[in-house]
Order: sequence, then C-alpha cells, then structure tokens
Amino acid sequence: MTFDPNNLTFNDAGLIPAIAQDATSGDVLMLAWMNAESVTQTLETGRVTYWSRSRKSFWIKGETSGNLQELVEMRLDCDRDCLLVLVNQTGPACHTGARSCFFTAIEDGNEVTRQTSD
Amino acid sequence: MTFDPNNLTFNDAGLIPAIAQDATSGDVLMLAWMNAESVTQTLETGRVTYWSRSRKSFWIKGETSGNLQELVEMRLDCDRDCLLVLVNQTGPACHTGARSCFFTAIEDGNEVTRQTSD
Repeated sequence: MTFDPNNLTFNDAGLIPAIAQDATSGDVLMLAWMNAESVTQTLETGRVTYWSRSRKSFWIKGETSGNLQELVEMRLDCDRDCLLVLVNQTGPACHTGARSCFFTAIEDGNEVTRQTSD
Repeated sequence: MTFDPNNLTFNDAGLIPAIAQDATSGDVLMLAWMNAESVTQTLETGRVTYWSRSRKSFWIKGETSGNLQELVEMRLDCDRDCLLVLVNQTGPACHTGARSCFFTAIEDGNEVTRQTSD
C-alpha cells in the first residue's frame, strides 16, 4: 500500500505527535509534532523535520545546533495518529544538553534526575 | 523536588501524551493520553491508567483484556508536556493483537508490516 501523509490522522491543528527513538540504544529521545509536509520532508531528506508550534515554522532538528536526527525508519501506529521515528542522533537531542528529554523520573513522589546514556 | 501532577503542562483538553515503552525490550508500545488524575492513579496503583478520549473515562490499560501495563517508572520531559512510562507489558499492547501499535513502517514510499517482538 502506497503511503500518503494525508491519510494520517492529524489533530485540529493539523499536527501529529512524533516520538523520536534512538535506533541503536532504543532510548526514547523526545516527542515533537509534524504536519503532513514535515512528514514528507523527513522522508525525502532523511533529516527529521518537525513543525515548531511556538515558531510556527518547519524545524529541521539540529539545523542550528548540529545535533541532527538522521532518519533510519518511520513507523505509524494502528490508529494512524502517532508516528515513531527511529533515528541516528548526533549529540544531545534535548535543548538542555541531555541526551534525551526524558531525564526526570518520579521516585517516591519526588522528581529525580536520571543520567541518560550518551 | 516533590512531584505534583498539576505542575505538568496539559493541552487545552487537560491532557498530556504518555508514551509507553517496554522496560525490558525498549520497544515503544503505544502512545495514549492522561489527565492529572490518571497520572495520580497510575503512580498510586502501579497500573498504567490513561484517559480515553473516545469514551471520556479512565482507561486502566488491560482492565478488560488482561493485557495490563505494570508501571516500572514514570518520567517527564524537559518541557513537562510529555510523559514516558516504562512498563512491564502483559501480552500485546495493541488492540490488533500486535505487541506494539507501531507495526507499520514506511519503506520506499510503501506501508509494510514489521513483526514486533513478543
């Protein structure tokens, strides 16, 4: 079956959540949003390209910082309303400098910082 | 720092996306949504509890099917607007019977089915 980005299920803002997972370590790195055109650009360029909700513009991950995400594989879920992008991540994925954005764990009711793998 | 679910960033519907990841295999299993109360219930009961947007009710994952998600660890991201739940998944996570909801990959412009690990 031919893939058509327009056959994904987008929210009212025309966006779909995309989970980025390190293709090597399996670590979940971040979640951001794509519109149909950024899905197309990601597939065509091999560089993961989100839609920045704050800047209202395409966001080629790492274009400024150099911390690019090279697409290894894009997957969609059973409801076609979420994407999973397996990536080769250069450097940290998180703007804080952490490898993954998910470095805070909840432990016994407290927030604790987890070291994320390099 | 004490964790307070009300200090998470929810969308206009009062929901936050939650990514479920198999704590053992590292496979991303699904994405669903939580409100503040389902975050609290998940932490208190150890059973991952989403908010069903279609049924507008709490959704204790696996309560009907038996395919429970036992919480291993809950994490939040740097923007506090996404959760990652590491789980021990009993049986398939997906309503189709697949282990993971992300069993469709895009390959050379076509949708192909990936075998997800058991």
